Amino acid sequence: MNIAMLGSGFIGRFYADSLQGYRNKDKIVSIYSRKEESARKFAKDYAVNFSATNMEAAINRPEVEVVCIALPNNLHEEAVMLCCKHHKAVISTKPLGRNAGESKRMLEAVEKAGVFNGYLEDLVYTPKFIKAYESVKNGALGRILWAKSRETHPGPHSDWFWDMEQAGGGCILDLGCHCVEITRSYIGKDIKPVEVMCWADTQVKPIDAEDHAIALVKYENGSIAQFEVSWTFRGGLDLRDEVMGTEGTIWINSFLRTGFEMFTTGKSADYVAEKAESNSGWLFPVGDELNELGYNHMFMDMFNALEKGIQPKETFYDGYIVNTVLDAAYKSAKTKQWEPVALDIWRGRIGLSKDHHLTEYDADHYLVKEEVTHYGVKKLILKNKKTGKIFEKEVK
Amino acid sequence: MNIAMLGSGFIGRFYADSLQGYRNKDKIVSIYSRKEESARKFAKDYAVNFSATNMEAAINRPEVEVVCIALPNNLHEEAVMLCCKHHKAVISTKPLGRNAGESKRMLEAVEKAGVFNGYLEDLVYTPKFIKAYESVKNGALGRILWAKSRETHPGPHSDWFWDMEQAGGGCILDLGCHCVEITRSYIGKDIKPVEVMCWADTQVKPIDAEDHAIALVKYENGSIAQFEVSWTFRGGLDLRDEVMGTEGTIWINSFLRTGFEMFTTGKSADYVAEKAESNSGWLFPVGDELNELGYNHMFMDMFNALEKGIQPKETFYDGYIVNTVLDAAYKSAKTKQWEPVALDIWRGRIGLSKDHHLTEYDADHYLVKEEVTHYGVKKLILKNKKTGKIFEKEVK
Amino acid sequence: MNIAMLGSGFIGRFYADSLQGYRNKDKIVSIYSRKEESARKFAKDYAVNFSATNMEAAINRPEVEVVCIALPNNLHEEAVMLCCKHHKAVISTKPLGRNAGESKRMLEAVEKAGVFNGYLEDLVYTPKFIKAYESVKNGALGRILWAKSRETHPGPHSDWFWDMEQAGGGCILDLGCHCVEITRSYIGKDIKPVEVMCWADTQVKPIDAEDHAIALVKYENGSIAQFEVSWTFRGGLDLRDEVMGTEGTIWINSFLRTGFEMFTTGKSADYVAEKAESNSGWLFPVGDELNELGYNHMFMDMFNALEKGIQPKETFYDGYIVNTVLDAAYKSAKTKQWEPVALDIWRGRIGLSKDHHLTEYDADHYLVKEEVTHYGVKKLILKNKKTGKIFEKEVK
Amino acid sequence: MNIAMLGSGFIGRFYADSLQGYRNKDKIVSIYSRKEESARKFAKDYAVNFSATNMEAAINRPEVEVVCIALPNNLHEEAVMLCCKHHKAVISTKPLGRNAGESKRMLEAVEKAGVFNGYLEDLVYTPKFIKAYESVKNGALGRILWAKSRETHPGPHSDWFWDMEQAGGGCILDLGCHCVEITRSYIGKDIKPVEVMCWADTQVKPIDAEDHAIALVKYENGSIAQFEVSWTFRGGLDLRDEVMGTEGTIWINSFLRTGFEMFTTGKSADYVAEKAESNSGWLFPVGDELNELGYNHMFMDMFNALEKGIQPKETFYDGYIVNTVLDAAYKSAKTKQWEPVALDIWRGRIGLSKDHHLTEYDADHYLVKEEVTHYGVKKLILKNKKTGKIFEKEVK
Repeated sequence: MNIAMLGSGFIGRFYADSLQGYRNKDKIVSIYSRKEESARKFAKDYAVNFSATNMEAAINRPEVEVVCIALPNNLHEEAVMLCCKHHKAVISTKPLGRNAGESKRMLEAVEKAGVFNGYLEDLVYTPKFIKAYESVKNGALGRILWAKSRETHPGPHSDWFWDMEQAGGGCILDLGCHCVEITRSYIGKDIKPVEVMCWADTQVKPIDAEDHAIALVKYENGSIAQFEVSWTFRGGLDLRDEVMGTEGTIWINSFLRTGFEMFTTGKSADYVAEKAESNSGWLFPVGDELNELGYNHMFMDMFNALEKGIQPKETFYDGYIVNTVLDAAYKSAKTKQWEPVALDIWRGRIGLSKDHHLTEYDADHYLVKEEVTHYGVKKLILKNKKTGKIFEKEVK
Repeated sequence: MNIAMLGSGFIGRFYADSLQGYRNKDKIVSIYSRKEESARKFAKDYAVNFSATNMEAAINRPEVEVVCIALPNNLHEEAVMLCCKHHKAVISTKPLGRNAGESKRMLEAVEKAGVFNGYLEDLVYTPKFIKAYESVKNGALGRILWAKSRETHPGPHSDWFWDMEQAGGGCILDLGCHCVEITRSYIGKDIKPVEVMCWADTQVKPIDAEDHAIALVKYENGSIAQFEVSWTFRGGLDLRDEVMGTEGTIWINSFLRTGFEMFTTGKSADYVAEKAESNSGWLFPVGDELNELGYNHMFMDMFNALEKGIQPKETFYDGYIVNTVLDAAYKSAKTKQWEPVALDIWRGRIGLSKDHHLTEYDADHYLVKEEVTHYGVKKLILKNKKTGKIFEKEVK
Repeated sequence: MNIAMLGSGFIGRFYADSLQGYRNKDKIVSIYSRKEESARKFAKDYAVNFSATNMEAAINRPEVEVVCIALPNNLHEEAVMLCCKHHKAVISTKPLGRNAGESKRMLEAVEKAGVFNGYLEDLVYTPKFIKAYESVKNGALGRILWAKSRETHPGPHSDWFWDMEQAGGGCILDLGCHCVEITRSYIGKDIKPVEVMCWADTQVKPIDAEDHAIALVKYENGSIAQFEVSWTFRGGLDLRDEVMGTEGTIWINSFLRTGFEMFTTGKSADYVAEKAESNSGWLFPVGDELNELGYNHMFMDMFNALEKGIQPKETFYDGYIVNTVLDAAYKSAKTKQWEPVALDIWRGRIGLSKDHHLTEYDADHYLVKEEVTHYGVKKLILKNKKTGKIFEKEVK
Repeated sequence: MNIAMLGSGFIGRFYADSLQGYRNKDKIVSIYSRKEESARKFAKDYAVNFSATNMEAAINRPEVEVVCIALPNNLHEEAVMLCCKHHKAVISTKPLGRNAGESKRMLEAVEKAGVFNGYLEDLVYTPKFIKAYESVKNGALGRILWAKSRETHPGPHSDWFWDMEQAGGGCILDLGCHCVEITRSYIGKDIKPVEVMCWADTQVKPIDAEDHAIALVKYENGSIAQFEVSWTFRGGLDLRDEVMGTEGTIWINSFLRTGFEMFTTGKSADYVAEKAESNSGWLFPVGDELNELGYNHMFMDMFNALEKGIQPKETFYDGYIVNTVLDAAYKSAKTKQWEPVALDIWRGRIGLSKDHHLTEYDADHYLVKEEVTHYGVKKLILKNKKTGKIFEKEVK
């Protein structure tokens, strides 16, 4: 696959390392950067034949088969419109837009133009997520009750993230977009998110945007999603998901505790610990970040789908859903109310009610709980269906 | 110390194991149970000289120095009033009352009677909590931004917990009371909790009360507390706390991951795994539950304080604060609003505003972030104090 | 119980914190130290009525019911002989002697004098060990194949440990004594240790004794024990046990990973992290060291046994076994051979052969392995009893 | 790269999944299997154009650029000789031979023929190993003192592993080959392994080969390597490495604890847990096994090297070293002696003596240890260079 990369910053380089690393057959053939120096450096580092500071020039080249957007949030819409104009397949970094309005326009544009579109939500492509998701789909956890995703770290790398105009928001937009799609996937992408309650604050940083937020997202079937996001966390990148179902539980730690632990006095001066907040004491490196963060499996899905002429797992439609949920979160943080998720476009199931699956013990009773006590006796807690009375019963 | 124990159920026996275990000098001298058979069995098991099915008879004995309430929630107030009547020191299990009204009456009664009163919130006495709390007080985490406590398991042991009248509520009251006091302690017991947002639902069990809830508690200084409680969790007893401060982070796992891991095929038929949901596969036992759950250190604080004539760390006042926060949580779950914490009695600090502690870089700039990049370069993100502009600067 | 404490150093104080802490009824009534200043300070800190720099004077007092030896290794024998002379119950810190000769003399002396004797091997009294041991005894792991104990840290606290004459050896004697008794307990204290292979070296420290050693101890029934000990480990106190049985596995981490994790930038200058090698970055504190290291449960067993007139779990006989195994380890480190464990005294089972418990599949075949393959098929690997041929068989 | 795959069993399919998975540009063009049915099935599953039951026919095809050996151990030599005959680049699974004699002949053959040769020791290509190794090389751990690798599981998948003639040995050869190369890499591949002490036994399985073994490998510079291997472990695949250096420690868990934890009651009947010993209770899946086990990075190194005309990280020479160390282990298990590593070919450093790096405190003293005590005092333990006396000194 021949790729035009838009953006030569931190994320563009991460993408390029994944796209052209390993034994991959894909190739970046065109690079756009706002700064000529950056474009040239990127072109040199990744052996890219064409570089430009004009976005359209980078896109509109015959050899380009797919355009990869790795730009600040405020430039996504412009880039997508150019891809539509030149009828190029397009994949965009997260979040898709700064808000649902932008996302909706992008979604409608690509669909009208009939171009392939992929939403680069890498964290639903991590090897751990993929396997956990399969288990959930196979019923290992029963009915999903709650899914939480947490992403916190000491703040993003590039200046534009901290600027409201360019970024469109703070950690909710930057990190919450991941969390919303992760938890939505566990609950079911065909289940409608209906309302959001969000707390957000600027507790530490000298910025206008929020640097810490927590939200609950209620789904039509009664499942609840939760996100915890922050730019004020100390200790590294905390990336954890938890899922509770009626028959099981999943805990995933994607970064800070992955089975790699190192203590060093730090006496060897040239040793530099990557990503950690310090370079001595106990450190928790990640083996292969590109893989652990899902980049490899994400691009595999995107390009395999493009080659087969099918949709990838994540499309602009998903990016639009995410932005709509986040818009409700922002609104809720201000109004202090549960705010509805204002989905103009919804392609999943509708009219679901909260599931009820009471467990019968016998014709007259529900089973509340069954357990082996502290003293080795099997005990049932039952509820009389008519009277509602709850009582214990020992079983021998 | 000579103790009258009120209640011979699960928690009464747990307390007794702690009180009379180890090399302890304390002694239960009187036991009250609603059922005569239970009272006698308890008396025999713990070598207690006097047993009664009349509560007052168990309390009003000359040798009794302190009364320990281990009864269903709806009987706490009656027991406390009898202790006041007979001028006995009293310590009560959690929650203090079914609501703030009950707690307030109990608080006022013990203070009017001038009797020693202790609130048996064991989870702020676990060895891990005690050490973590000291670190927080010594400033290891800087300013506290957020504290979360999570307690979830597959549901309580005794039937009365599941009954609204006796229990007064579901998992919010049963488990949330722990979480509120844990997080309040990390944030500072002199900081006023001001409002609560709570989601609660009955997702699985055939009961009137909630079996799953999540809440946020805002404090006057801008710190945020969070609790996650459930009776629907699968996998054992999940007991975890997390604290975020400007200078650090604490993660505590008090039960399911404490450094003890066992795999067994379960072929030996007589092996019974305690507390776990299964008795084969990977199991995670806890060494000494009484100690890990804080009972030993709790009673030590209570009795040492009583002997010295001082207040223990946790008093009925704390129990009252907790009930008031939980009342706001219940109200919020219904109104879907942030509800104020209606504290009639408050003995901590007042008039705090949200702290602001921006970090100066130089006279003209605030420091947003400092980091070592992916490529080994030290990078600063700064904000111009006047223009508000945020930009990057590399440092060699 | 009224205790005479011999020794006021690091371990004596640790013992005293356990003995007189919590709600304990026991009391130190006499303290001996080689230095008068230390004796006085200890007496003041722990409210001890009598202090002495003459060992016999501290022992030979009417109120003393039991003598606790917390002295350097080279003084244990003298102390034990004085206890025998004055017919005092005696409990001694580990190792019992500097070698089996000393241990044997002490064992014979206490038995001849008929005095209660206890061996203070705290690590078979940790809450985790106690529960793990019960599981093993109940058969949760099947037949025990291998047990490993590892204790490594950056070196002991007091100067005498580093001196061959006083200590009698290096990390093998200091730490290996724990490991030998832990692993011997899992394998069965009635199973005879028969031979030892040990590697030892002085890799880092400027001392005559070994600062790193690894050994294998073979038992008569074919089980194998292993110890890994070092004074050169970096990162804190690494205290881990592993047990493999035919039906299960146990992993215990007693210190560095117990469910308590803290990150701190270390900016608050007065924060001191105890026991850790640094006071910033990720730290792993232990909640209540006295309890986690087994001191509380150890003294409980000792004194309960003494009160009941029975033997404690660990006696001088166990101390003698441990010293004999360690003597073989020291010899093996020099001869580079497997050295026999020269037990003059053995009270366990004898004449055991290596167990064989082959699993039959049917009359003609043994079962080698049963598994579900990568591709979801159940596969058996069988061995023909007559021909010895091994082959696969799929089962539907 | 066009590959001829020799072997269509478990490992051949694992290799194929890695080679042709992801966005890889490499392609298997020829498959050899001993059974025609297997060859055809493999060809179909992986879209391979040519299949054969004649090994030479599969190798000797013009489009084949590299031959990948995934055969039972007893067939490696024949395959290598055919590659030499037809002058094909060859990469072989582990162990290279059943013994050093076979390995040496293979090494000499490929070097004489001048063909590219790679040794497929995947576990020095895991993402965790690669990053840990870089840290070690950069000095984060100081001088390496000890490196341990442990690989244990409930026994291999295919029948031939259990047969001495085909496999050449038991778990030492099957698993120890990984451990030797892992630990040798941490210590330094230019440091000569000099002698081995090994214990091995057949504790559980009805086989002639060993099913459990532990060994120590001494290196010329005084560093010590250790391996623990078994086919009798219960609980899954235990794959852990530990490294101790003078300035640090590394702990790697590659399989059973990688940050992915799942509890399931197992009620959904169609859920199949891969690789675990059970499909209910707490399970610990691995995200992407191919990546975590190093296959992807291994083939990347092999083929990148082949394209560049350089040597890969692991060659037949390394395979030969490993076999020679394992031969010494087998011999030692029989003789119960430390056995020399009989390296006829050695291309690393020679004449190293055990390093001594004593730390000076001042002109007259060595520093033994520096620590902050239990009581907050900084304490030095020093050794007088002349007298050898060791003493404590407090520093304010």
